[in-house]
Amino acid sequence: MSMTVGVFDSGFGGLTVLRAMLPLLPGTRFVYLGDTARLPYGSKSRATIARYAVSSVEFLQQQGADFLVIACNTASALALDEIRAAARVPVLGVVETGAAAAANVSKAKSVLVLGTAATIASHAYAHACSARGLHVVEQACPLLVPLVEEGWTDHHPVTATVVDLYLGQAQSLYAKGSEPDTLLLGCTHYPLLRAEFDRALAGRMTIVDSAGVTAARAAELLAPSPSAAPARCEFFVTDSPQQFQSLGSRFLGQPVENVQHVELPE
Amino acid sequence: MSMTVGVFDSGFGGLTVLRAMLPLLPGTRFVYLGDTARLPYGSKSRATIARYAVSSVEFLQQQGADFLVIACNTASALALDEIRAAARVPVLGVVETGAAAAANVSKAKSVLVLGTAATIASHAYAHACSARGLHVVEQACPLLVPLVEEGWTDHHPVTATVVDLYLGQAQSLYAKGSEPDTLLLGCTHYPLLRAEFDRALAGRMTIVDSAGVTAARAAELLAPSPSAAPARCEFFVTDSPQQFQSLGSRFLGQPVENVQHVELPE
Repeated sequence: MSMTVGVFDSGFGGLTVLRAMLPLLPGTRFVYLGDTARLPYGSKSRATIARYAVSSVEFLQQQGADFLVIACNTASALALDEIRAAARVPVLGVVETGAAAAANVSKAKSVLVLGTAATIASHAYAHACSARGLHVVEQACPLLVPLVEEGWTDHHPVTATVVDLYLGQAQSLYAKGSEPDTLLLGCTHYPLLRAEFDRALAGRMTIVDSAGVTAARAAELLAPSPSAAPARCEFFVTDSPQQFQSLGSRFLGQPVENVQHVELPE
Repeated sequence: MSMTVGVFDSGFGGLTVLRAMLPLLPGTRFVYLGDTARLPYGSKSRATIARYAVSSVEFLQQQGADFLVIACNTASALALDEIRAAARVPVLGVVETGAAAAANVSKAKSVLVLGTAATIASHAYAHACSARGLHVVEQACPLLVPLVEEGWTDHHPVTATVVDLYLGQAQSLYAKGSEPDTLLLGCTHYPLLRAEFDRALAGRMTIVDSAGVTAARAAELLAPSPSAAPARCEFFVTDSPQQFQSLGSRFLGQPVENVQHVELPE
């Protein structure tokens, strides 16, 4: 019997996590839920995010999920305890996974975390990284998600300037001699800006991308048997399926098909 | 007995309309609803926006509103018919009001409209302007709201570049000799970028700001009796009152007080 992996995000970003999982988990059925009617979670309060995330996770379990990936950084940061309390299956969140990967990679034991306003304000990455012996500097980057959604990604002059401004703001937060050697991308939109971060950092830091490391960790935990069958995907969204289909392909790196609308309880 | 004016927006932007109404409608009680748990409406479908707007307007009527100002451009563009059908009091929407003001101002009978992706995709301004004999060019500017919410407003170099890029994109849509003489700001966040538009246009177009003209029209329709009493404001939001209070003051131009949380039906 094939495994069903439920993937939850507030919108499109989690498609970068799914994209990284597809080649690692052949034969798997993926059920993706994008709570697009209520995105972005980044600007909402903890109580609101927890309520939305729990109803989303309940929906994924009804669809048969044996394993849950919380691909939404904001929900992982603010509501993972509530999600685990409500779930009847194992739950993997991008914050813990990203922090663990950063701890593995950083020689200086010092990391810079970038994310949305709510993710950073929650200090969830700071706590998860500190618990693993890392020194952490955090920088909120509220404009990066809108820039990605506008399609102004790699090599756009405005995006280059904004990335430089945010990294410069972060720079001013370091004490002399305590510069981090690792950059943790704490938002699933940011892999689409990877070339800009590579350019701006010019090798000064190792980049840990939460989408990639979460996919790798899911594959480790689920230990898939080698299978010739390709992974299958079903998509559910709370807003327009057409819009998700047309915008989502940039995140998934292939056409997004089988998108259905679903109403979730408030 | 004093008049109660209900003001509805998906978030903060409508505070620029309220700000413009305060000096024009002394003695009035204003009840403002910001549906902040579900913002931004700009990326959502027509059906979702209509459902949210109708439940918001019903709440404002329960609070005693005798007159409704739909300060949210997206809701005015996509859901005004549904709102009027659900309302038991007069409804003023920013789209019709903005189009009427542009028609009054434009000598060339040609206007450029800027707004969010959903407002522009609805072509509601194009229809309202065409019905008044105007030639219309529309340009979606998805990054301007996030830039205002980041606080990168007037004189920020990134914002200056983005405004120039969007106006440049619009320029490429004009036929030679049919350049508009009027710029209609179809989003209540844009008054906070007024100095950037003034700089970029350098007098080439007359700017019509939807917040200002909607406030003026409300004052005309309600014909307030001169009164020494200042206007009073009550605020309701569907997400965190603290966040609304701290971010809202920039939009209102004075401290935002008396903010209460409210749950609306989905």
